[in-house]
This record gives sequence, structure tokens and C-alpha cells, in this order.
Amino acid sequence: MKLYSYFRSSAAYRLRIALNLKCLAYEQVPISLLKDEQSQDSYAAINPQRLVPALDDGGELLTQSMAICEYLDETYPDPPLLPKNAPERARVRALSLAIACEIHPLNNLRVLKYLKHTLKQDDEQRNNWYRHWIAEGLAPVEKMLAASPRTGRFCHGDMPGLADIFLVPQVFNALRYECSLDAYPTIRRINDECLNLPAFAAAKPDAQPDAVS
Amino acid sequence: MKLYSYFRSSAAYRLRIALNLKCLAYEQVPISLLKDEQSQDSYAAINPQRLVPALDDGGELLTQSMAICEYLDETYPDPPLLPKNAPERARVRALSLAIACEIHPLNNLRVLKYLKHTLKQDDEQRNNWYRHWIAEGLAPVEKMLAASPRTGRFCHGDMPGLADIFLVPQVFNALRYECSLDAYPTIRRINDECLNLPAFAAAKPDAQPDAVS
Repeated sequence: MKLYSYFRSSAAYRLRIALNLKCLAYEQVPISLLKDEQSQDSYAAINPQRLVPALDDGGELLTQSMAICEYLDETYPDPPLLPKNAPERARVRALSLAIACEIHPLNNLRVLKYLKHTLKQDDEQRNNWYRHWIAEGLAPVEKMLAASPRTGRFCHGDMPGLADIFLVPQVFNALRYECSLDAYPTIRRINDECLNLPAFAAAKPDAQPDAVS
Repeated sequence: MKLYSYFRSSAAYRLRIALNLKCLAYEQVPISLLKDEQSQDSYAAINPQRLVPALDDGGELLTQSMAICEYLDETYPDPPLLPKNAPERARVRALSLAIACEIHPLNNLRVLKYLKHTLKQDDEQRNNWYRHWIAEGLAPVEKMLAASPRTGRFCHGDMPGLADIFLVPQVFNALRYECSLDAYPTIRRINDECLNLPAFAAAKPDAQPDAVS
């Protein structure tokens, strides 16, 4: 498998965790967002959305990290990323989407660029924007996790799964932008549990071949 | 089933289509975004994310439209919203997520409010923002649809499914904000096909009990 990736892309980070949890071997093809390589026509031929990540699984080109995680879970079912019954699967997907739809898209590099170049927002205004959506988004995720007996060592029970795959890269981003996580004790606890696992630790941005400081 | 809904919410619109396609009966509980009813504590007890839609299926409270569509497809499999094999399922999910993650979150009411009240952006700047993310998002969706032999009468083959459920409400939003759709002939064709079906037509915002002009 070939993973088109950027060390700091949190959507790529999700896939590195998923592939590691499944013990699937993959080669990383670095696409530098800093150098805008994702916008080049050569990459658009792989992913017309000009976004990382994309996964090439034996010639099948897959895009969108959530769709790829579902594909991996259907194609390589062991260990599973989703529980067995429909209401529990819905809970795990809802937690994942509460991050994938409500937080991450607003803090994407292209959005920050639009705020800077088109709306002429300065560093402080952009940082406030970033932290606003992190706080707006993590608070309900904390509530959903803290309120449910289905939460265990991880987001759902005692095995890591899809929601953890989405949570950890989002927490990484929050820390990078110096957001306080004091109000989210369950999220912090689960994030720590995850990072103790080799599958998560090996997926960290600074452990990737294309990492630059 | 009880659908917590707002006529103009495109995530609620998705679920109305899905429920109609599955021929499932549901009662709509209107939550007015205009009156900020989704922020009230009574609704937060149903959905801590304070977003519509939410679905109550016999006491099981479900959130996030994509997670709910997957739940409906697993629980009420006929007619299916997703194809059978994994690469095709990944394609349909990627198309859906290209809308759910890359377009819709940026043009949400709460984001437009932040642009207005916090960043002091005027009507024109907010409309430009809206149209920018529609154009950024629909262009690759058009490419993905036009380039693939898997596209048929609908986004995937000749039966309506998950990607159509996400596409039609997004086109509705685009038209509401007077975005030109000239560059997206495949999207327009599929949108027209869908709206000819009773399941889609009955789900339209202006056909809902809480619709106001």
C-alpha cells in the first residue's frame, strides 16, 4: 500500500494509526502541504480533491480519511475499528464525525490561508479562530465520552478504535496551538492511553520520514 | 422514530431523504436554528453537540447525519444506501465526505455568525466566503463524478444512495446563495434526477411543516 501523506496533516495521521492498528505495511509518499504539492496536477490525478491523505491499495485509489478507515475495516477486519452492533457503531462514528466535520475542516491550512490572505486576519485573530473551534468541538466530545457507560479505557470500550483514531490527531493539533485541555479530563486520559500504544506512537507527526521541525 | 430537524438545515435534509428512501415513518420535532433552540439545555440533553439533526429510534439517540445514515443502512438494509463491495463503498463514502467535511462545515450558520459578529465581516464578504467554499468543494466532486464509469443516473450507478443524499442538500444551499452551477453539469444532471423522485421531493426544505418563507 502507498499512503500519500504529510507528517503534520491530521487526516494523514489518522490513517497512519489505522494502518498501524491493522498491522498493515505501507510506504509513505510525502506530499508537502507547505510547498503546496497537493495542488499540483500530478497529485490531482491521484486525488482530484487536492487533499492529503490518499491511499493506493493495489491500484485502488481511495480518498477521505473516514472512507478509507471504513474500507480498511471492511477489507482487513482484524482487529476491528468498529464495534459489532449498529447503535454502538453509530456512537463511534458520531464521535469520529464530531471531530472530522465539526472541528478539523474549520482549522485546515487552506482555511487559515483564506483568513490571512483574503480576509486579512492577523496572527492573533487566526489563533483565536483556531482555538474557538477546538473549544466548541472538544467540549461536546468530552460530554459524550464522560456521560456514557460505553466509554472505557478508550473512546468505546477497552480496545482502541475509530473514534480514538480521530481523537488523537485532533488533540495533537490542539496542543500545537496551545489550547488548554483542562476542561477535557476524559479526552486527556484517553489520549494518554492511546499514545502508550506503539500503533499510535509510531504514527506521530515527528516520527515520520518527512518531518521537519 | 423522531427526527429533531430544522427545515433549512442541510444535514437534516439528508436524513429526511434517507428515511424517505427507506420508506421509514418518522415524526419531525422542529428545532429552530433561527431562534437558537439548538443551544438550549433541553436540546443539549438530546444532542450534547447542540446541532441538528438527531434521531430517536426507539430510545436510541443518534447524532451526526452520516453516522445516522450508516445506522439506518445497517438496521433497515432495504433498499441499500451503499453498494456491496468495499472499493465501491469507499467511493460513495468519499463523495459524501467531500461534501460533509469539505464544504458544509465551513458554511454552517455558526461559522457565518462568527464571521459576522467576531470578525466583523460584512454581507458581501460572508457571501464571498460561502461561494468560495462551494466552488472549492463542488469542482472536485464534479471531477470525481464525471471521470468515473461508476457514475450512472445517480452518483453511483442507477439507484439513488448515500452520495446523492449528501449532494442534493448541498446543491440546494448553493442555489440559495446564488452560486453558478454552470461548471458542474454532472452534478446538475444528478440533482435533477434525484428531485424527480418522491423521496427527494418530499424532503425539500419548503415542503416541511416548520418551513417559513
